[in-house]
Parts: sequence; structure tokens; C-alpha cells
Amino acid sequence: MSANSKQQIIEAAGIVFERFGFKKTTMDDIAYAAGKGKSSLYYYFKNKEEVFEAVVAHEAKQLVAEINKAINASHSAVDKLRSYVNIRMKRFVQRGNLATALNDNFLATFAFIEKIRNNYRDFEVEMIAGIISHGIDNKEFKPIDANFAGEAILTCMIGFEVPLLTKTHTTEESVKKINNVIDMFFYGICT
Amino acid sequence: MSANSKQQIIEAAGIVFERFGFKKTTMDDIAYAAGKGKSSLYYYFKNKEEVFEAVVAHEAKQLVAEINKAINASHSAVDKLRSYVNIRMKRFVQRGNLATALNDNFLATFAFIEKIRNNYRDFEVEMIAGIISHGIDNKEFKPIDANFAGEAILTCMIGFEVPLLTKTHTTEESVKKINNVIDMFFYGICT
Repeated sequence: MSANSKQQIIEAAGIVFERFGFKKTTMDDIAYAAGKGKSSLYYYFKNKEEVFEAVVAHEAKQLVAEINKAINASHSAVDKLRSYVNIRMKRFVQRGNLATALNDNFLATFAFIEKIRNNYRDFEVEMIAGIISHGIDNKEFKPIDANFAGEAILTCMIGFEVPLLTKTHTTEESVKKINNVIDMFFYGICT
Repeated sequence: MSANSKQQIIEAAGIVFERFGFKKTTMDDIAYAAGKGKSSLYYYFKNKEEVFEAVVAHEAKQLVAEINKAINASHSAVDKLRSYVNIRMKRFVQRGNLATALNDNFLATFAFIEKIRNNYRDFEVEMIAGIISHGIDNKEFKPIDANFAGEAILTCMIGFEVPLLTKTHTTEESVKKINNVIDMFFYGICT
């Protein structure tokens, strides 16, 4: 059994979960999609929950790599933050299983999903706070509480996911709106 | 049958719905709590949905009256907006049935709830946009898009309801945090 084989299962499972949803997907579906026997599946994973957790972790890792690349390519903290928000909001609708884990009310009843959510939210706050701290060091930003500002910006992004999920906004509208919010955060509305 | 009698039913129903939730409450429970016969109930309301709609409308009206009073007592647009946010977030956890109608996922499946939500969200955006327009006229705020800014501030408030609903924050924490966000909106984070 190779690490490659495990990776194949995770990638195939990602597609299956996106198509059928967590509840309807069976270990048989995953094995079939991965072209493996069910025994190989159980060699790596105890149950469907564990496969889903691995799928979500994999998608989160891809998203984070993409965000990091964009952040490193931007020079100012203002641009870094804009890159973060844009990629995060655009990928939100595409990275099906991660977005589902973070938002599906049915899934919210699973303890392992709650753990994923909390970890991912904490991680996002840290990422944004890191950019803001960098901007404070740079004198781009006022000496504000970076952690709190990170939490506030994340909360706004989560708020703008709602119309995305209920389909009253397109991705482009939500990205545009959250960018306008970021401008308000940058420059304020007071004269 | 008097308007007073209808009002008594609405107030009693509000308490019953808060206690048992929309799903478990029966027309019998409401009639009993209001000290009326079931026939009086059906004189005013076609079904449980209609009673709940009236309860939510009543709570919204009370909240709006309270907000308007505070807004009128504040002079600057900055203070008006702060009053709005404070009362709105504090009442959010107390005004049980309105908050439930706006947030409960079970209730989201009812068309009449969807209508209440959309109306109430639109109304809130208008209220906040009105304060911001006033601030622009006053030269307190930059000539921004008042409607969009209203939507952004409402979206943030909704985002901060999430930790309230999942009980990871107390009301005080949420109110404090949303006030900090409002400060960021006012003055920006950029130097």
C-alpha cells in the first residue's frame, strides 16, 4: 500500500462526496470511484467520517497553498489582504466539501465536523491577523488589535457566504461586495 | 371581538411560542394561554402560521419603536448608528420569536418565514442606509453608497449573531465586538 494509493482514494472520495453528499455516499461508492477494493479503503480509513475528514483536510491544504502563493506575490499588506479575500471567496463555492463541512447544518451535528470548523476558523483568523500584523509593522495600518480585526474580517466574509449559499448572489457579486467592505475597513466611512 | 382581544392572543402566543418552539406549539396551547376559546382564536387567525406571523410582526414593531426612539435621541449619525447596533444586538437574544424566525433552519423551510426574513432584512438595510445618508448630508461621512454600506453593516451584524446562536459568545461580547467593527467602519484601519 503506497501513500499514492491513499491520495487516490482521497481525491476520488472528494468527487463522490461532492456529487452525492456526505449522507448518501457509501464506502462502496468511494471504493468503486477509486478503483480499489473495499479492503484497501479500510486499510487507510476506519469509516466514512475519516474519509470525509481527509477529503476536507486535503481541500483546505490546496486552498491554503493557493492563498499563500498569492499572499507572497503581493507586496503591501493591503494587497495581501485583498488577495486573501478574493481567492477565499471565489474558491468557497468551488471547493465543495470544505465549504459544505463549514456550512452544512446537517453536518453540524457531527462532533468531528465541529472540530474541523473550529480549527479552520481559528486558522483563518490567524492568517488574516498575520497579514494585519505585517501591515502594522509596515506602518500601513494603525496599531490596532490584529487578532480582533482578523476576526471581524472573517465574520464579514462568513456573512457574505449566506447569500452565496442561498443563491441570492452570484460568486462575482459576493466577491465584489466583500471587496467593497474591505475598502470600508481600510479607509473608513467618516470624513 | 375587540382589537384588544386580538392583541391579548398575540402576546400570549408570543410567550407560548418562545417556550415550546413553533413546531410543538398547538392552537390549543395558544388558546389556553390567552384564556380564550379556540373559536376566538380562529376568528382572528386561519392557522398557527398566521399567529406566528403576527407574533413576529408585533416583536419587530416593538424593536423598531425602541430603535427609533434611541436614534431620535442621538444627534450625530455616528451616535445614531451606534445606538442602532447596540439595541439591535442586545435585543436579538431577548426577542425570542423574531430572532428565531430570522435564524432557525427548521423554520427556513416555510415560505411565510422566507417572506418575513426578506422583508425584515430589507427593512434593516433601509434603516441603516437612512442613518448613513443622514451622515453624508451632514458631512460626517464620505459620499459613499449608503445602501451598500447599510448592507455591509447588516451582514457583519448577522455574522456576529452566529457565535451568539451557538453560545460561544455572550451577548456582551457580541455587542462589544460589533461595536469594535463599527469603529473600524468609521475610521478605517489604514494609516
